[in-house]
Amino acid sequence: MKISEYEYQRNNFKISEAATTPKKILDKDEAEKLVQKRMKEFAQAQEMMYARHHFGLIIVLQAMDAAGKDSLVNHVFQGITPAGFHVASFKQPNSIDLRHDFLWRVNAQLPERGMIGIFNRSYYEDVLISRVHPEILLNANLPGIQSLEDINEAFYQTRYRDICNYEQYLTHSGYVILKFFLHVSKEEQKKRFIARIEEKDKNWKFSSADIRERGYWNQYQDAYERAINATATIANPWYVLPADDKWTCRAIFSDILLARVSQLPLSYPKISAEEENKLESAYEELKKD
Amino acid sequence: MKISEYEYQRNNFKISEAATTPKKILDKDEAEKLVQKRMKEFAQAQEMMYARHHFGLIIVLQAMDAAGKDSLVNHVFQGITPAGFHVASFKQPNSIDLRHDFLWRVNAQLPERGMIGIFNRSYYEDVLISRVHPEILLNANLPGIQSLEDINEAFYQTRYRDICNYEQYLTHSGYVILKFFLHVSKEEQKKRFIARIEEKDKNWKFSSADIRERGYWNQYQDAYERAINATATIANPWYVLPADDKWTCRAIFSDILLARVSQLPLSYPKISAEEENKLESAYEELKKD
Repeated sequence: MKISEYEYQRNNFKISEAATTPKKILDKDEAEKLVQKRMKEFAQAQEMMYARHHFGLIIVLQAMDAAGKDSLVNHVFQGITPAGFHVASFKQPNSIDLRHDFLWRVNAQLPERGMIGIFNRSYYEDVLISRVHPEILLNANLPGIQSLEDINEAFYQTRYRDICNYEQYLTHSGYVILKFFLHVSKEEQKKRFIARIEEKDKNWKFSSADIRERGYWNQYQDAYERAINATATIANPWYVLPADDKWTCRAIFSDILLARVSQLPLSYPKISAEEENKLESAYEELKKD
Repeated sequence: MKISEYEYQRNNFKISEAATTPKKILDKDEAEKLVQKRMKEFAQAQEMMYARHHFGLIIVLQAMDAAGKDSLVNHVFQGITPAGFHVASFKQPNSIDLRHDFLWRVNAQLPERGMIGIFNRSYYEDVLISRVHPEILLNANLPGIQSLEDINEAFYQTRYRDICNYEQYLTHSGYVILKFFLHVSKEEQKKRFIARIEEKDKNWKFSSADIRERGYWNQYQDAYERAINATATIANPWYVLPADDKWTCRAIFSDILLARVSQLPLSYPKISAEEENKLESAYEELKKD
């Protein structure tokens, strides 16, 4: 599998041309085995990250509703030690969040270096949902934003630039940011919504608001295209994954995850000669004990 | 008093040419009255800021030891309602801070918009004290920093740029950042240190580490000159105040503070016609009560 197939590093993403079905659909068993294999290797890398506290990993997951973000996290990270990662769900900002800048609430969820932070939705919502529903920005009480007319292209360009600068700064500080867009088709979303209504145990996953947002499909697609193009860089590219087949999507995701982490110069902490001597003495003492 | 005399907006600050004694020393009564007058006006502006929650004010105070940061805060903000501001002292970063990026701990101290945050020392320490004592950066466990040789000019240029980007972003988000360097002379510091040792009630303000740091005077002056030049911008200039006379310094500070806040388009929140009607009904009801 070639990662570059899914990677966008610059302003060349056309959402209408990006596949929602993978070139080759893997069968469930095959995909599951691949995920397990990749994540076994990933677990070793994670242990080194954890021991060294050098790098922090931020995994941004963005998608339309029912694209499979939650189930991806559940299935892919199943075997990974929970102490090493934290899932943060970015829902509607609360009143304290709104009293600060839009990236303020990210900081509270930022993993320590050595850890993995999974952002289920993220600060990208501030250039996605607000594109489709600009009226929500009026609640943020921002200087210079009195009416919908003030929320113009320049406003979003500034936000994009601020996001790029922030990600660049985090990169300088030892964070690796992997941004994934799970790209599902409108037809597949329909099927999954219907399943959520038909199956009693899935009812909780559905809200009538989901249908309302589905009505803005094209606007959301446009907002994603703009956001991805404006924030895809060489250091922090976007990965657009075909999401209509859940297990193939998970397999591609774990492939990319492992490939990117494998590029890091990871190692266990080195022990000084002095510490090595102490280990040796402790060893001798324990044997005599 | 002309603010521009103390303002640096670009790479043109020479610390050896900047005055530590003011052109005109005000006598204590005169200076105190001026401070009170300015801060009375400032209090009105603050009330509007607080009511509207549009703008947040960040006051960065940097200086050599004994330059008068703490006493400036105590004397200047005496009459200001404590609910509207918060003083954050940035001391040595703790182990949790060090596990993140260097600006991470700033976020926790960031005032809500509508409030005033006074930073007694700040994120600038990360390009000041670390310039003089680069060995402390080895504790931060940053990727790419294995030895002192890795802490080169490029490292600091990246930090300066990251700070500028962060301040620019905060400005976009409604924050006003006022950066002050209280510029004291080496001779005046000596006098104040001696007083701290001679007067029993001031002993707690002195530590033997202060003398050790005084030994690095020239290196600190150099670090300040570089940091100020690299981060002085039109939107977020530095103010370099002569600090050898404490009350004159406070007067200049309050002058600048008021002038900058007066430039903001502050107003009380507007009440909608509907809300106005409700107020009217409440008023009538209260009168009949």
